[in-house]
Amino acid sequence: MKTGQRTEHPLDAVIDIRPDGGRGADGWTVPEYGNMVGPFGGATAAFILRVIDAQADRLGEPVALTVTYAAPIADGEFHVDAGLVRTNRTNQHWTATLSQGGDVKSTATAVFGIRRDVWSDTEAAMPAVGEPASYPPARWSLGVAFLRNYDVRVIDGSPPDEDPPAPSSLSTFWVRHDPRRRLDFSALAALADIFYPRVFLRLGRSVPAGTVSMTTYFHASAAELERVGDGYLLGTARSQRFAGGFFDQHAQLWSQDGVLLASTNQIVYYKDSFE
Amino acid sequence: MKTGQRTEHPLDAVIDIRPDGGRGADGWTVPEYGNMVGPFGGATAAFILRVIDAQADRLGEPVALTVTYAAPIADGEFHVDAGLVRTNRTNQHWTATLSQGGDVKSTATAVFGIRRDVWSDTEAAMPAVGEPASYPPARWSLGVAFLRNYDVRVIDGSPPDEDPPAPSSLSTFWVRHDPRRRLDFSALAALADIFYPRVFLRLGRSVPAGTVSMTTYFHASAAELERVGDGYLLGTARSQRFAGGFFDQHAQLWSQDGVLLASTNQIVYYKDSFE
Repeated sequence: MKTGQRTEHPLDAVIDIRPDGGRGADGWTVPEYGNMVGPFGGATAAFILRVIDAQADRLGEPVALTVTYAAPIADGEFHVDAGLVRTNRTNQHWTATLSQGGDVKSTATAVFGIRRDVWSDTEAAMPAVGEPASYPPARWSLGVAFLRNYDVRVIDGSPPDEDPPAPSSLSTFWVRHDPRRRLDFSALAALADIFYPRVFLRLGRSVPAGTVSMTTYFHASAAELERVGDGYLLGTARSQRFAGGFFDQHAQLWSQDGVLLASTNQIVYYKDSFE
Repeated sequence: MKTGQRTEHPLDAVIDIRPDGGRGADGWTVPEYGNMVGPFGGATAAFILRVIDAQADRLGEPVALTVTYAAPIADGEFHVDAGLVRTNRTNQHWTATLSQGGDVKSTATAVFGIRRDVWSDTEAAMPAVGEPASYPPARWSLGVAFLRNYDVRVIDGSPPDEDPPAPSSLSTFWVRHDPRRRLDFSALAALADIFYPRVFLRLGRSVPAGTVSMTTYFHASAAELERVGDGYLLGTARSQRFAGGFFDQHAQLWSQDGVLLASTNQIVYYKDSFE
């Protein structure tokens, strides 16, 4: 168990890796980042990314991360083993496995890379919305801890409370850490999973739902993240198809001054009732 | 080497797995599915999916597949090892590794699942276009073999020939196998990678570019694929951001009668010149 005074930001407790001397590291679930069952998937993604980022022979910055959620993580200690697959001239491939007592709970693949000075352009358009201060802080009806680490200002698509089913699964909101914290790649990996299950919006109620696989592309450089500091990001998320118990959701995370920092996709298991 | 008369469809040669008695299988590159360097990434994805699909204890149908492309596959034999991570009540998690002579070339994670009778809806809108016959067959200026296995009718966004740079990376086209072949999950996994690098459109010329990680979500059931038969699919693809040598591309594949069969995302390494 982790003991002693905790004075750091709860997210820093989440990514507080304890290297095992090889390519692995131990971690502990953090109650502040709990979800319905086990830790918030974004916390798991952030931890895995941090383990790879801390490898002595890691090349460049995060480019892509896929995490699969095979089973819930029990409260307490877990272990992540990273594996270096291949180092190329400007990119590097990794795998990782998260386990508890020998039981695999998550698997991951990651690509890191060196960003180069080449022709660049952003083709996606940032949603046109008002300033964060013009929207009231969200009040969450969902009984999950992790959302309380974020100051969220909803423009479109709150999670359902007493609302009727919505015709669209679109949510758009401003978000920053509460308490405030600088943005880094691990924080961005966690934020990519903040978009509560889109099926809640369409059904107008919460139902059993859990991410089975999530992929995040990091479009921004470390320098671009540094410029964001602890400011707000604009997030927008939407689903394409709900079918047979699995739906996708696609999301973008923008800096307030219009840099597309990350885009992410996940496929989510769902039921349409608690029965 | 593979010998003898080849009378089957070239795609069936691509997914002709030779199980090794355990969870692995041998395969051979197929010249008809060659790309600039090594085999077409879609062929690699199709093979890996087929290896998992053929496992005796496989549960349900493909839901998600992520393949990373760590290094080019040399012409000839390769080996895929699959690993079962976990079987849940309605979904199952797999990993896979493709290697040649002990050298890992690709890694993969896959989720399979049992589709259930729950509330379902398609929220994405199929692009409104004319019938396939109203567009002429594409003529490819790209010197790659794999595209010749497809009958493509371009509505928007041909690969560049003598065209000026396009303001948008959007491509929309009808596509079916040529010679014709029924659709199945392996064929769909291959088709998900048919959207030539979006940077070619934006620069108005081809440049060095290669997928580093691709994720495909299979929205359709086996029964829905069967109903497509060997008909046309409508594909549409677009990028969000090109930055520092990596860009994403998002694509959808629709049946002619409006079923969203799959959506896919990839992150692509690129340079802006051959120098």
